[in-house]
Amino acid sequence: MPARRTYLDAGGRSPVTSRTAQALQAGLTDGWADPARLNGESRQARALLDGAREAIAEVLRVHHDNVHFTHSVPFAAERVLRSMVAARRGRSRIVVSAIERDALVDVAEFLSPGNVDRIDVDRLGHLDLDAFRAAVSSPDVAVAVVQHANHEIGTVQRLDAIHAIAADAGVPLVVDATASIGHVEAPAHWDALIADPADWGAPAGLGVVALRPQTRWLQAWPDGDDDWAPGGVSVPIALAAAVALQERVEGMEREAQRQHDLVGRLRSGMEHLEGVTVVGDPVERLPHLMTAAFMYLDGEPLVSRLDREGFSVGSGSACGKAAFQPSSVLAAMGALTHGNLRIGLHPGITEQDIDRFLATMPRVIEAVRISMSH
Amino acid sequence: MPARRTYLDAGGRSPVTSRTAQALQAGLTDGWADPARLNGESRQARALLDGAREAIAEVLRVHHDNVHFTHSVPFAAERVLRSMVAARRGRSRIVVSAIERDALVDVAEFLSPGNVDRIDVDRLGHLDLDAFRAAVSSPDVAVAVVQHANHEIGTVQRLDAIHAIAADAGVPLVVDATASIGHVEAPAHWDALIADPADWGAPAGLGVVALRPQTRWLQAWPDGDDDWAPGGVSVPIALAAAVALQERVEGMEREAQRQHDLVGRLRSGMEHLEGVTVVGDPVERLPHLMTAAFMYLDGEPLVSRLDREGFSVGSGSACGKAAFQPSSVLAAMGALTHGNLRIGLHPGITEQDIDRFLATMPRVIEAVRISMSH
Repeated sequence: MPARRTYLDAGGRSPVTSRTAQALQAGLTDGWADPARLNGESRQARALLDGAREAIAEVLRVHHDNVHFTHSVPFAAERVLRSMVAARRGRSRIVVSAIERDALVDVAEFLSPGNVDRIDVDRLGHLDLDAFRAAVSSPDVAVAVVQHANHEIGTVQRLDAIHAIAADAGVPLVVDATASIGHVEAPAHWDALIADPADWGAPAGLGVVALRPQTRWLQAWPDGDDDWAPGGVSVPIALAAAVALQERVEGMEREAQRQHDLVGRLRSGMEHLEGVTVVGDPVERLPHLMTAAFMYLDGEPLVSRLDREGFSVGSGSACGKAAFQPSSVLAAMGALTHGNLRIGLHPGITEQDIDRFLATMPRVIEAVRISMSH
Repeated sequence: MPARRTYLDAGGRSPVTSRTAQALQAGLTDGWADPARLNGESRQARALLDGAREAIAEVLRVHHDNVHFTHSVPFAAERVLRSMVAARRGRSRIVVSAIERDALVDVAEFLSPGNVDRIDVDRLGHLDLDAFRAAVSSPDVAVAVVQHANHEIGTVQRLDAIHAIAADAGVPLVVDATASIGHVEAPAHWDALIADPADWGAPAGLGVVALRPQTRWLQAWPDGDDDWAPGGVSVPIALAAAVALQERVEGMEREAQRQHDLVGRLRSGMEHLEGVTVVGDPVERLPHLMTAAFMYLDGEPLVSRLDREGFSVGSGSACGKAAFQPSSVLAAMGALTHGNLRIGLHPGITEQDIDRFLATMPRVIEAVRISMSH
């Protein structure tokens, strides 16, 4: 790897700050014991875990009793969908937006094979509200899943309207907030919410589920699991997650504005390149994410070439599975594209980094074009 | 808590050494990225994860391709049982020893409700081989689960004979080695094995499954999960787990002898107390574990009083769930007991600690006796 590296793949993962790393270490020193036991060391671990839960609950604006920790986002998705479907008495259909995260759609398909309805989005990525209304009005719908904001293109959904439609139909709404918490204000309109600490700068290894007190669910897993996580979650990681979120929230408004401007600069720079389209809503969007679609170039050589130039970016499906599947998000939006690049900023990224990146792109595109023509 | 504390509850959890804590920190510095992506940071994280898997596989004496990481022991149990039962074409019965860990029995009951056979053990905790042979010969048995060594009483099972019986019946044997790896040599006779890094001194948050190449299993979870863990496991924790195991294995023979002697001292000291019986095989046992049954006293006040005296011990079920359920292990062995204490030594425990503990016990017993008579 080149000595100087610029990490522009901060969606779902982000470099861990020294304050967060210190919290992890403190969590290990004081929270290594099993919070489920009764001796002094265990009580101390439990207090740290409860404190972490409270801090995260406060940002999500729910009571900590309604926040559950699991080991990861896909695991959180499996537990929340399984337990909410179980409470819906025989209803099994799951309605999702066409641009949900693969991890969530995979879980939905696993739980209700062949019974998952994907609702179209418009060319900016906003859910088709009429189609959504028609879908949730079917009497066999158990639950609907819509993201707060998209993890590739950044488009923020209009959850007030979406939640109202679901509520009218009596269908509980699961909101995937895994791309937005810590970047913008937490959403207000949902019956269940999934959040991803690794996305806001925590070490990976924790998934968060929040439920409204009135949201119905049935335990659909073996007895004896601690809360929603078999074997319990890592106390040090939970503590680090709470501290990382605190760190993000403290400067959120200013940082969101700064990143919004940087992504604006990036979007206009990219759109000046031939055959490149920037996807998603330019206004109602997350501050830190951007996806560009390339008409003639594949994603894999672009990512590899940029990696050799010292820039880490993403491509294809952003969910962490097989990295060069075509993006299901772009496919759902009807974007005609060979490849795409996904950029995610973290607080350490500067205007100079963006300008260096934009200055590098023509050279990278040219190199990839030549290599593809051979 | 008293300033001086002695942690004698080291089963399933153990204080983390500074070398292991440093490995966690190094794993965070170099392994924070998502190992499933393709940029330089992710390749580095993947290399750390692969290295951790190789180091653990070597101790288990299997190829690293056959070692899978999950988030915890109960989760490992659910995945391995679910996927092995799925491969057994309609057979659904699960045979377990009567003293298996609650977490495993809960998973078995969840997967095959009412179809779990518990096989008796003798008064030292050894499996009744004739009863086991009869149980696995039933044609609807999918899989058998027997522990390498018991997590409360320490008795080591005769896995060579047990595995031969299961193999004769064509039934795959899952061995729960969660109490033994890092304390004694890894077992040789199994078709699938479950191990617990937190038990050998790693930070909690990882479960290990090893399979023989010929062991059959079918994926019984959503597509897109990384290996056996939805969302993947924590790279820093995996690295810390490998380092902690290395640390244990380096000095294992000498440390096992030392702990075996300390537990011998503890056993004879406890057996001199009135109404106290030490349970399990005094010879074929783990070096570091001991459970004492109290004829007239409850476990909870004993644990609380010892906690106030600065000693952390366990009681009841050792699996980390509701802490003062009666011990299912002791119940299965027919031990007539009100309460019990479980002691687990870690490498930091000295002969002086044991002697202080034994000197404290008469005072603790007297205080609990008085408080119970009021």
